[in-house]
Amino acid sequence: MFKLSRVLHLTSTSRHRLLEVLSSRNVEVGDSLWDRRDFTHSAGISTATNNYSAKGYASDRIFAPYTVYKGKAAFSLSPCLPTFTKLDSGTVVVDRRGSMMMTFMHSIGERKYDWDKRQKFALSATEVGSLITMGSHDSSEFFHDPSMLSSNAGQVRKSLSIKPNANSNGYFVSLNVVNNLLNTKDYFSVPVTTAEFAVMKTACSFALPHIMGWDQITNQQSRGTVGLQRKGGSQILDLEWEK
Amino acid sequence: MFKLSRVLHLTSTSRHRLLEVLSSRNVEVGDSLWDRRDFTHSAGISTATNNYSAKGYASDRIFAPYTVYKGKAAFSLSPCLPTFTKLDSGTVVVDRRGSMMMTFMHSIGERKYDWDKRQKFALSATEVGSLITMGSHDSSEFFHDPSMLSSNAGQVRKSLSIKPNANSNGYFVSLNVVNNLLNTKDYFSVPVTTAEFAVMKTACSFALPHIMGWDQITNQQSRGTVGLQRKGGSQILDLEWEK
Amino acid sequence: MFKLSRVLHLTSTSRHRLLEVLSSRNVEVGDSLWDRRDFTHSAGISTATNNYSAKGYASDRIFAPYTVYKGKAAFSLSPCLPTFTKLDSGTVVVDRRGSMMMTFMHSIGERKYDWDKRQKFALSATEVGSLITMGSHDSSEFFHDPSMLSSNAGQVRKSLSIKPNANSNGYFVSLNVVNNLLNTKDYFSVPVTTAEFAVMKTACSFALPHIMGWDQITNQQSRGTVGLQRKGGSQILDLEWEK
Amino acid sequence: MFKLSRVLHLTSTSRHRLLEVLSSRNVEVGDSLWDRRDFTHSAGISTATNNYSAKGYASDRIFAPYTVYKGKAAFSLSPCLPTFTKLDSGTVVVDRRGSMMMTFMHSIGERKYDWDKRQKFALSATEVGSLITMGSHDSSEFFHDPSMLSSNAGQVRKSLSIKPNANSNGYFVSLNVVNNLLNTKDYFSVPVTTAEFAVMKTACSFALPHIMGWDQITNQQSRGTVGLQRKGGSQILDLEWEK
Repeated sequence: MFKLSRVLHLTSTSRHRLLEVLSSRNVEVGDSLWDRRDFTHSAGISTATNNYSAKGYASDRIFAPYTVYKGKAAFSLSPCLPTFTKLDSGTVVVDRRGSMMMTFMHSIGERKYDWDKRQKFALSATEVGSLITMGSHDSSEFFHDPSMLSSNAGQVRKSLSIKPNANSNGYFVSLNVVNNLLNTKDYFSVPVTTAEFAVMKTACSFALPHIMGWDQITNQQSRGTVGLQRKGGSQILDLEWEK
Repeated sequence: MFKLSRVLHLTSTSRHRLLEVLSSRNVEVGDSLWDRRDFTHSAGISTATNNYSAKGYASDRIFAPYTVYKGKAAFSLSPCLPTFTKLDSGTVVVDRRGSMMMTFMHSIGERKYDWDKRQKFALSATEVGSLITMGSHDSSEFFHDPSMLSSNAGQVRKSLSIKPNANSNGYFVSLNVVNNLLNTKDYFSVPVTTAEFAVMKTACSFALPHIMGWDQITNQQSRGTVGLQRKGGSQILDLEWEK
Repeated sequence: MFKLSRVLHLTSTSRHRLLEVLSSRNVEVGDSLWDRRDFTHSAGISTATNNYSAKGYASDRIFAPYTVYKGKAAFSLSPCLPTFTKLDSGTVVVDRRGSMMMTFMHSIGERKYDWDKRQKFALSATEVGSLITMGSHDSSEFFHDPSMLSSNAGQVRKSLSIKPNANSNGYFVSLNVVNNLLNTKDYFSVPVTTAEFAVMKTACSFALPHIMGWDQITNQQSRGTVGLQRKGGSQILDLEWEK
Repeated sequence: MFKLSRVLHLTSTSRHRLLEVLSSRNVEVGDSLWDRRDFTHSAGISTATNNYSAKGYASDRIFAPYTVYKGKAAFSLSPCLPTFTKLDSGTVVVDRRGSMMMTFMHSIGERKYDWDKRQKFALSATEVGSLITMGSHDSSEFFHDPSMLSSNAGQVRKSLSIKPNANSNGYFVSLNVVNNLLNTKDYFSVPVTTAEFAVMKTACSFALPHIMGWDQITNQQSRGTVGLQRKGGSQILDLEWEK
């Protein structure tokens, strides 16, 4: 699998828009005009374009992460759809589960974020369920071990914590990565306002059925593969009672 | 109606993905990479593919259940869309109501669940309404009698209960099936965390309009069958006051 | 405008499904298998098929009301989409606002409801906003006067009230119609459980953007009429500051 | 960029509908039959049709704002979708962020609103997050400076405030515009009921993923650009751990 190194520079124009300097296959989605009129910045956010293209996916992908930029670090949030496989029988099944991908970057100067040293954390459906149900005084912490079932189990650990701030009017979203194989530690902490967390919750609630693949189930009728047909016979089935 | 017996084996790979061993027309959607890195398991979940195919539906179906695996039992949740019939007049009506299908299985060993002795419970729209409105201290119980209007009324009874656990930080979801005809009793109980219940609530809220068939109503305009046309005359109607 | 008189008989089959006896252009969507295993009934619910066809709309319409049947009366709830008009300029505007149509019927015997004497009440977007924001102790009351701007103003009055029951574990949904022109009065009251009201709220929240026509706005890109195109020039606009 | 001056007259018909007098490319979406049976009015609401057409967008646009008309002023709310750009690589990125556009008008007589002196305020995703999370006692205030990064920074200031009324059964939504360049001040204040605010919240929650562009991400599979394909190889990737 190849990996592209890239630096993206975003500069504010005289009309307060952000110019995008794009490297091949990778792109920074310009920070919002509305959120960030007060500075230009340099950062690159991608959700694994190269991984996808390496697997032979269409390069026709859409990028629209929700990004929270703060003084010391930033993170972006973007839904990562499940992939499906069609079996010989015609049945379509989930191949890889979807997730909400969080990508953290350190600030490396005024309005610059270090894309090359980014760290990712993929929230599962249940972890998203935990996030969207959090009250203003609640905390959540999630642990991932990429080497869990291998001989390296426990050598690399990622933990994401979401903790209310002192006033309970926002949260600290922090990612801790300990890699004993490389002898590295990495820590990101991003303060999130109530409004930003509300966007995260609403966007995650919207995305949840999609990362679960349920939109594909409910879309079946629109696409005409199931339902909407004249009944041929009078046989009546009760799904609950049949096996 | 035919019934397929099958066993599905899912094994974790060195990269923590789940290999899928699929029997014809039936499939297990592999447990999430994110949720279950710590074991392999053997289970099969299907939402009545054979029933559908027996009725002549397209085999092109999508499976993406949300499954909660626990020590003694597991259950999965999946929307079951309504079916529609087109009348000679061109009007399309609901033929069979949709539901949220819950499928329970016993654990029959480490990471193995007994697909052959599964029991199903189909939540109606109103039962889903009950579930999604539950507070952390609330209980719900639903009773179904498949033989209600026949001479066997009362002989087979299914009840689903959702009860908060002692700490009110989760629920027990239990299914009880008493079959006096076969002289069998079956009982499943699955502890559900707050995060898992939040997924169930959000996913059920998403699915509810779909199992009611309302997405088909609101999709009419997109598909161009209603609306979006130049008005021919000036006749103005007030639907509320006409019959 | 023509008006069809019809009686629909729904009978439970041995397999607990409901047979549908349909008159031309009008249809009863059979009561749910799940809700109503305990009786058959006779009722007809339509959302003004004849009105639509009188206006030249496609007869290809979909019926999927949510119906609450109780001892003395029943009501159904169904979204009524807005209609749009395309102007010569190509701009599409709302022609008639959408609504949530409630249709009330008296019980006229065991499991029979009087379709011919039904009364309708069309909830506006704002009235839907009132409904979906109701707490368990809240009441709402809406007044409609169909003759408001005519010489008959005040002669016919409809009021819909939603009031919590004594235990605050449900509501009474009541419609009062006073017609001084015909010297008639009509009153319906239907007790609604918390679960049924949760379905109404969730379904109304789902339907609200659709009856406002916002789904047509957000669907524009999917249909390729707006957005998704390469920028021709570098002119940058800030919509907020232009007129 | 050209600017159209226009006056739109809406008159109630004998059947309580509103006649639309439309100027080229601009349109008033008639006030709801349900909300406003008691008066006719004259107002024009547009969401920058001319801006869009100046940029070469299709003129095929849909207008369906939610408008709150009150005695001294009115405002309408309408989602403004993001625009996207397709890169040479095939990747699609957000070009301009979406927003919820609020348009305020002064009342200039009975049922007349001054379209020519309207003022707009475009709520960002995060500002929408703030709005939808407001409790009945909460306030929000947002500040926009269109000249932020130019030599005119601070010369023009817009602030939108949402404050609970004395009874906490509604809000005052107010826009203040101070333009030191033109030496003008403008102030609008519109009382909003709990029901109207519930519509705003529900409609904004619906629209939020769309103005973020996330509906384009989740729609990719439906349109077949990603997902749904047979796996070619056995290579298994874990997006979270790759770069």
